[in-house]
Amino acid sequence: MSHNTFGHLFRVTTWGESHGPAIGCVVDGCPPMIPLTEADLQPWLDQRKPGGSRFVTQRKESDTARILSGVFDDGDGPVTTGTPISILIENEDQRSKDYGEIARAYRPGHADYAYQVKYGVRDHRGGGRSSARETASRVAAGAVARKVLGDGVKIRAGVVQIGPHRIAPDQIDFDAVHGNPLFAASTEVVGDWEAYLDGIRKAGSSVGAIVALEVTGVPAGWGAPLYGKLDGELAAALMSINAAKGVEIGAGFEAAELTGEQNADEMRLDLNKQPVFLSNKAGGVLGGISTGQPVTARVAFKPTSSILTLRQTITRDGEETDLRTKGRHDPCVALRAVPVVEAMAACVLADAHLRHRAQVG
Amino acid sequence: MSHNTFGHLFRVTTWGESHGPAIGCVVDGCPPMIPLTEADLQPWLDQRKPGGSRFVTQRKESDTARILSGVFDDGDGPVTTGTPISILIENEDQRSKDYGEIARAYRPGHADYAYQVKYGVRDHRGGGRSSARETASRVAAGAVARKVLGDGVKIRAGVVQIGPHRIAPDQIDFDAVHGNPLFAASTEVVGDWEAYLDGIRKAGSSVGAIVALEVTGVPAGWGAPLYGKLDGELAAALMSINAAKGVEIGAGFEAAELTGEQNADEMRLDLNKQPVFLSNKAGGVLGGISTGQPVTARVAFKPTSSILTLRQTITRDGEETDLRTKGRHDPCVALRAVPVVEAMAACVLADAHLRHRAQVG
Amino acid sequence: MSHNTFGHLFRVTTWGESHGPAIGCVVDGCPPMIPLTEADLQPWLDQRKPGGSRFVTQRKESDTARILSGVFDDGDGPVTTGTPISILIENEDQRSKDYGEIARAYRPGHADYAYQVKYGVRDHRGGGRSSARETASRVAAGAVARKVLGDGVKIRAGVVQIGPHRIAPDQIDFDAVHGNPLFAASTEVVGDWEAYLDGIRKAGSSVGAIVALEVTGVPAGWGAPLYGKLDGELAAALMSINAAKGVEIGAGFEAAELTGEQNADEMRLDLNKQPVFLSNKAGGVLGGISTGQPVTARVAFKPTSSILTLRQTITRDGEETDLRTKGRHDPCVALRAVPVVEAMAACVLADAHLRHRAQVG
Amino acid sequence: MSHNTFGHLFRVTTWGESHGPAIGCVVDGCPPMIPLTEADLQPWLDQRKPGGSRFVTQRKESDTARILSGVFDDGDGPVTTGTPISILIENEDQRSKDYGEIARAYRPGHADYAYQVKYGVRDHRGGGRSSARETASRVAAGAVARKVLGDGVKIRAGVVQIGPHRIAPDQIDFDAVHGNPLFAASTEVVGDWEAYLDGIRKAGSSVGAIVALEVTGVPAGWGAPLYGKLDGELAAALMSINAAKGVEIGAGFEAAELTGEQNADEMRLDLNKQPVFLSNKAGGVLGGISTGQPVTARVAFKPTSSILTLRQTITRDGEETDLRTKGRHDPCVALRAVPVVEAMAACVLADAHLRHRAQVG
Repeated sequence: MSHNTFGHLFRVTTWGESHGPAIGCVVDGCPPMIPLTEADLQPWLDQRKPGGSRFVTQRKESDTARILSGVFDDGDGPVTTGTPISILIENEDQRSKDYGEIARAYRPGHADYAYQVKYGVRDHRGGGRSSARETASRVAAGAVARKVLGDGVKIRAGVVQIGPHRIAPDQIDFDAVHGNPLFAASTEVVGDWEAYLDGIRKAGSSVGAIVALEVTGVPAGWGAPLYGKLDGELAAALMSINAAKGVEIGAGFEAAELTGEQNADEMRLDLNKQPVFLSNKAGGVLGGISTGQPVTARVAFKPTSSILTLRQTITRDGEETDLRTKGRHDPCVALRAVPVVEAMAACVLADAHLRHRAQVG
Repeated sequence: MSHNTFGHLFRVTTWGESHGPAIGCVVDGCPPMIPLTEADLQPWLDQRKPGGSRFVTQRKESDTARILSGVFDDGDGPVTTGTPISILIENEDQRSKDYGEIARAYRPGHADYAYQVKYGVRDHRGGGRSSARETASRVAAGAVARKVLGDGVKIRAGVVQIGPHRIAPDQIDFDAVHGNPLFAASTEVVGDWEAYLDGIRKAGSSVGAIVALEVTGVPAGWGAPLYGKLDGELAAALMSINAAKGVEIGAGFEAAELTGEQNADEMRLDLNKQPVFLSNKAGGVLGGISTGQPVTARVAFKPTSSILTLRQTITRDGEETDLRTKGRHDPCVALRAVPVVEAMAACVLADAHLRHRAQVG
Repeated sequence: MSHNTFGHLFRVTTWGESHGPAIGCVVDGCPPMIPLTEADLQPWLDQRKPGGSRFVTQRKESDTARILSGVFDDGDGPVTTGTPISILIENEDQRSKDYGEIARAYRPGHADYAYQVKYGVRDHRGGGRSSARETASRVAAGAVARKVLGDGVKIRAGVVQIGPHRIAPDQIDFDAVHGNPLFAASTEVVGDWEAYLDGIRKAGSSVGAIVALEVTGVPAGWGAPLYGKLDGELAAALMSINAAKGVEIGAGFEAAELTGEQNADEMRLDLNKQPVFLSNKAGGVLGGISTGQPVTARVAFKPTSSILTLRQTITRDGEETDLRTKGRHDPCVALRAVPVVEAMAACVLADAHLRHRAQVG
Repeated sequence: MSHNTFGHLFRVTTWGESHGPAIGCVVDGCPPMIPLTEADLQPWLDQRKPGGSRFVTQRKESDTARILSGVFDDGDGPVTTGTPISILIENEDQRSKDYGEIARAYRPGHADYAYQVKYGVRDHRGGGRSSARETASRVAAGAVARKVLGDGVKIRAGVVQIGPHRIAPDQIDFDAVHGNPLFAASTEVVGDWEAYLDGIRKAGSSVGAIVALEVTGVPAGWGAPLYGKLDGELAAALMSINAAKGVEIGAGFEAAELTGEQNADEMRLDLNKQPVFLSNKAGGVLGGISTGQPVTARVAFKPTSSILTLRQTITRDGEETDLRTKGRHDPCVALRAVPVVEAMAACVLADAHLRHRAQVG
């Protein structure tokens, strides 16, 4: 309900602006007795943090997460207590600069104009609340969600398209993602993509991308009709990520071109007499409920709106002007979205797990 | 939160199964003093109701909505009272038939297996709760939402692709939608599409489609960061419609191929010194908040899962079988989704309107 | 969140006005596979229904509940399916009468003025939405909640004070409640109370009362800090009943006069080495979480506001007037609140049970 | 919904344990453009903070609140931006001590046993999450709520009974509350009460108390039927305060002894032809909606459970033991509840204000 909270039982409330003293989140509803320390959060935050390569913003942040509540060490190491887990990440690199121009003019493609019209005020420094910096809180919460889900649920995402360059579906290899600075789901494409993205970067331009998600180990039965559908929740969560413009589940938009024969996944029994599907056009969800197949989705991200090219815009004083967005930027904001996509999926699934357990036991 | 409720302030709870005595919804949070009678609901329900052409299910339903509460006539005609509006639609054509086979076997592509595994029981008659029949309740609620929004907000949807056949973006004409039985957003394509869909229908097959949505008249400022984004809410609402597999806002998946220069909508002032955007790749939403531009979205629907071709599946007793889904079906379920897409958009916008008024006044 | 919904996971949405065609509720989130028919609801509704004795309103209603969705008989009798259960109760005795006076004038003690000021309109017939008639929906929902809780949880309420007449704490006998028309929790007092209430009734007056609640069989661990406390939820639910003006848990207001030595319940082990409390000042809840002791509460109800004495008031046209509320009334509205108190407790506990199961498993 | 969040539109999520590094809250949904600095919070926190007199715990905390997000100074001083306001208060005096005994044994009257049974673990240091220390977060949030409400709404509370000593209703003077260390709503009683409480304190005992609340300036129309009643929300909020055992609105439990004639507040017009009530048994709320009269409530608090007397209890290892709770305590925990009662009322009213504005405009 709340604008800055997501989840129903596993609930995450995030707060903080790009250039305030800190950002953070409160994770409420976490089951108790789950071992949890800051060391469980940091690897995921490190994946997302800026400054890691020439393809992401040069802002320097250690993104060190502190857990301020909700865990207790009663002798066997810190575990969750069932009370809210408050996580705080300080902003370290709020580079001193003159914000005069963007305080005044609305950056095209950014939320500046919409915030100003809605609220009558906005924290323009680095985009304030609408900055991608907020996603660090999501990643921290996602790390807690992964602990709730346990090792049986494996969540992986990767870039499968950048601008016009795509990885063929049968070439997607999620194991390749963390072996290259582009989070590409294929080792093959890295060289070409780096060259392409270097061109974009040097031109002061940016480009969009598509991130694919695959979750294995989700048991059949999670999710619920009709407004609590697992795919609906996932779509909402993924669409809430900065710059996301589209979400599809399973065959997605391709399904519009299929016939019923091509689309409906047939079933058989395996050697253990367990149900198996002969294909996965559904993306692991039927009627909003997981089927036991891998849950698959894809998210489209628009190009970073901050570019060096001079663009037409207006000021909040109602004057036309032209604006070039200087400063530190990502040539492809979707790259750093990979850990965020995974984190949002983790939170949605942890929530679905608890909701399922509530109703069905 | 509830699985069968959507919206935060303008809240809709739906109930009912395909072959139960009735379906319906409760609309809570509606502002008072809005003129409302059953005659306000019926035209929208008539658009969605089955039996209207050879391209939709031959089930015969009058879909007559009764308002059981929440309106009162104090002398000047019935108006909403601010209390919950209960709407009931009786199921009239629960055709008597032998459900033995589908009670036992899971229809591929349907929710049968998922429901059975989750709940241990399912109302298999006509798909029970997962039937598209439930969408009549959404359309009724959407009719109330339209009254809340007033005439200034114009919500229109139409089919823009059916199987491989697309309407070019610059050929989309929403005024054409209700002049043809395919809800096609172009008069030009109707002949070809009818021929194509007749072929699908006669083959006992089905096909997917894409529905486009355009809402004009939404003022700047509705929606909110970050988990109450207008586009996130819209995505969740549209993805909750039966058979939806993908949602995109504005440029959507196409944005993945654009550069920052191509994607970020530039701004200028019009002759009245009011802000105007020179393009609408954003789909009317920036940072989750409406900009005053038309809100645009597209939804991909999978083909109807019920087809006459024999398909491999299993039974709930754990045996392999082959199943042919007989009975009344839509060759393209997306056709009847057009009024549902509009209704869900109306509900999301009415909710966003009330939420905005709450916070900002 | 919604004004007309309560509960978090076991959620009840009620709708309907006193003199509309029907009232009802939608129960969402109910676990599946629970045997449920209309016969499970009716005994509880019969306890609450009007016309049962000279001490309650003479309105004639059969209060027959119909279940319109959410149950299915797959051969072994109807069971819940996990989908929303819609319950409808028709209003049969909407006595034709001239409402001119109360349409115009605000009845003192009633919600008339508040509704009119808030909404600008009100359904004045029989109090509309604010009528105690709505509590039939609560009782129906409570009957479902009892099935969720099972027989191990025993919920009992009874009148322990009526006007100045009290039952001594050590004389309270909940088994006596349904053996007398006053729902008194003691057979001893019935004669005196009847005489007293006959006097009130004949004088066209009314009187307040206190209803006590005791729930046994609640396991330790339900409820949660801090804003989901079991006693906080119970207080909210009980205070939402028409005419309720106060709620206390355990020792309640008496606790204000106790010392720490008197108030804090000491603990010992029983013969089976299980924890036992030596007293129950806490009312079965510590820190918002159940302890395994009986959950006890008391609710104060104000006297029925409708009385035959002429009272000073104003009209909605802004004129002073004097008003006598004619028609069918209860001399002590709290009597019929007994099944409502039980029903609300059942719903709160069913919800707490599901929430506990969600978080802790 | 969430266990640690309250409010619907003006939402407060609190986190933190007594002896963790910090406590705090996130206030979401606050309207924008409200001037707000830490100096607006501190006076209210200072009222509640420990160490102020010999009648409250000697823990030394400066209770300095830091605002980490949600405000921005665009040149005219810091204002709220409409984004979440994160408030952090460090724990400074986590006195080093041996918790061995209370880690093992359950303190009678405390939440120790309930937490341990529910979660399987508890942060026993100072009561962890169940400590009254958490109420500092409520007071900080309440300070923000007061800014939302503006000066027209005046919220005052005070102690009106301590153990057996009561202030007569016609002697209650809320202006006296902050002029004495007992927060007594009468200067007259202070001497006697201090002597009484000194006796309690020296005996290592404790005592309960009653806090009265009066809010003036609430316009008619806030609140809503039936499960969003203003008095129901208020009861839930007040009952969520540590040690609260009862809540009553207006005449409260006394209403049980009144007749309809005595209880229903009559109405007349004042000299300006505005509605006035001739009494306020209703406590400013009818049908769950404010009437424009002062909103009045009373809350009963149990005595502090920590006392120096040896008490019978058990250990988590299932052994009987006797326990004396040493350390810093309040002889009457209700004294420090006065600012908390006010803060909770402020939050409930700010929320009701926004909800009313949403639905009715």
